[in-house]
Amino acid sequence: MAIKFELLKESTECKARLGILETPHGKIETPIFMPVGTRATVKTMTPDEVKDLGAQIILGNTYHLHLRPGEDLVEKAGGLHKFMNWDGPILTDSGGFQVFSLGDRRKITEEGVEFRSHIDGAKKFISPEKSMEIQNKLGSDIMMCFDECAPYPASHDYVRKSMEMTTRWAKRCIDAHKNTDNQALFGIVQGGMYKDLREISARDLVEMDFPGYAVGGLSVGEPRELMCEMLDFTVPLLPKDKPRYLMGVGSPDYLFDAVIRGIDMADCVLPTRIARNGTAMTSSGKLVIKNAKFKEDFTPFDEECDCYVCRNYTKAYIRHLFNVNEILGPRLITIHNLHFLIKLMENIREAIKNDNLLEYRDEFYKKYGYE
Amino acid sequence: MAIKFELLKESTECKARLGILETPHGKIETPIFMPVGTRATVKTMTPDEVKDLGAQIILGNTYHLHLRPGEDLVEKAGGLHKFMNWDGPILTDSGGFQVFSLGDRRKITEEGVEFRSHIDGAKKFISPEKSMEIQNKLGSDIMMCFDECAPYPASHDYVRKSMEMTTRWAKRCIDAHKNTDNQALFGIVQGGMYKDLREISARDLVEMDFPGYAVGGLSVGEPRELMCEMLDFTVPLLPKDKPRYLMGVGSPDYLFDAVIRGIDMADCVLPTRIARNGTAMTSSGKLVIKNAKFKEDFTPFDEECDCYVCRNYTKAYIRHLFNVNEILGPRLITIHNLHFLIKLMENIREAIKNDNLLEYRDEFYKKYGYE
Repeated sequence: MAIKFELLKESTECKARLGILETPHGKIETPIFMPVGTRATVKTMTPDEVKDLGAQIILGNTYHLHLRPGEDLVEKAGGLHKFMNWDGPILTDSGGFQVFSLGDRRKITEEGVEFRSHIDGAKKFISPEKSMEIQNKLGSDIMMCFDECAPYPASHDYVRKSMEMTTRWAKRCIDAHKNTDNQALFGIVQGGMYKDLREISARDLVEMDFPGYAVGGLSVGEPRELMCEMLDFTVPLLPKDKPRYLMGVGSPDYLFDAVIRGIDMADCVLPTRIARNGTAMTSSGKLVIKNAKFKEDFTPFDEECDCYVCRNYTKAYIRHLFNVNEILGPRLITIHNLHFLIKLMENIREAIKNDNLLEYRDEFYKKYGYE
Repeated sequence: MAIKFELLKESTECKARLGILETPHGKIETPIFMPVGTRATVKTMTPDEVKDLGAQIILGNTYHLHLRPGEDLVEKAGGLHKFMNWDGPILTDSGGFQVFSLGDRRKITEEGVEFRSHIDGAKKFISPEKSMEIQNKLGSDIMMCFDECAPYPASHDYVRKSMEMTTRWAKRCIDAHKNTDNQALFGIVQGGMYKDLREISARDLVEMDFPGYAVGGLSVGEPRELMCEMLDFTVPLLPKDKPRYLMGVGSPDYLFDAVIRGIDMADCVLPTRIARNGTAMTSSGKLVIKNAKFKEDFTPFDEECDCYVCRNYTKAYIRHLFNVNEILGPRLITIHNLHFLIKLMENIREAIKNDNLLEYRDEFYKKYGYE
């Protein structure tokens, strides 16, 4: 077995849990937020900086790495860890989500997905087997099954067929996965916003006995309440002794929602993407640095924050960097935002330990505001 | 006096010198290469990274900082050092070079230069007095006189008139400079490629007793031999006990040329600019990372280099970063190139100490090639 999950504690006031996930490249404390390093780099950051922030695991994107530089080059480099100089755990997605996002440029069949590269229009094909082959070559600690993430909204009939195919693909992924000793393959529960389909998907995947499970197809545009409802229904269908991963979630409110419902892992490009647009996450909510009111503001983003950026730079200076398009601007906000989310998850883990997560959440919202 | 220059040694084999320049923000070992932080940031780098590389002084550009964010904002922030979080010495240029580079968009009179901003076309005016006012507000350790850098080639008549005006402006700069206790003002010798004019310029400026002197108007497109000839002629006209600064020089060969002729300080955007285009400076010459031959090259830029980049990253990885336009690419080459030049200057200082600079230069060229 490539990974080992130890459940340390279950909250007495909600479904939140504390755990330790052991991987071939180190241990992860859960619940955890995972920064995204799409193309073998967490945008603007060195791996050392990412590690110094306290990040314990990062993501890589199979679709992007397949197109450039290609999994063969990464394999020749000694795998993704060595290629990008990150010696901690890595999770790779399956490429499914990106491929399905291509819209008109992709065609789904039982065999897999034919698509045209968003870069040069070249014809490509990813099947469950191909996704496993790519992820095996990348050498990530945690791999994801190739699935279809159904759009929202979608009809019961569409989602049912899609979910059933995802389940057949999950079986093919298990069969194609060549490196079970060093790489753990997670199943992905689909079923859209339909509880009966979620139930079938979870049942069939749990039967396949994956070392971990993701809840897919959420945070795709549905109302927040509906996401919570689906989590409330789906998470209890998953085995307690396996890690649970909610894909594509990275705003503080969604992270609270997820953890309180028993999710152990989450990832999102949000903190790094909004950083590059000049938006900082602070304890009193989001801050848009280009706003004129910060022109002569010689205080840090967040007086409560002890990150490198808040200890050394003022809003006025960072606003200047964005005004003149200097790379240091996005760099500094990326550091701050990742620190913010990593620290938030540390606090969440501490609150679970102390059985006061709900109180901590309410305190947090009092200042941050409710989005 | 804002600065103190101590001449430690003169080479026995050429005009190279070793010195210590004390400024209000720390000591500088000369000869020194100064990285350029045009708009209150050395492009892509944090000040801590710049310092960790061994940089002892950086440049700021008066023209750029005047336009954005404006010297008044920087003054309110507590000066340029505090604004940008760099507590070491800073040298600011006068804005002259940038203003004259605007071509059709500027008009020179005895009073100063009227120009249109390259950003929004707004009408602006910089005179010797205005340049001093801006630099006083920025609070740099070393300020430069507002001068005209004559183009190359230019007629004797044009250069003579320009040089004479520069001399009159130098006097006005001295009169307008309001903070002589904390900021040292350097004079700039002009005279183009005409020795008689260089002689007059140097004589008149030396009479004004500046705490340091720049040789301006070189490295502006003239043949390298001509630059060397002008340095051979001009440098001996300057007082031995004052630092000598060659503006706009940053390639290894030009640095050797300058130091051997008695120059103590140099600056250039070259290492940071070519980094952003994917060109690394190595002990065996320049390396263009996008070159296809590096696709599967899993070795560092330079086997001899002990910088952070060469210790951790391969050419194949950095080539990938450039291929997918990731910011980490320019970041890594910037670190490497600045390290290369800072290390080169360290080696040059060591060679002067050991009286074997010419031998070191010849050894260097054997591998680097002669550009």
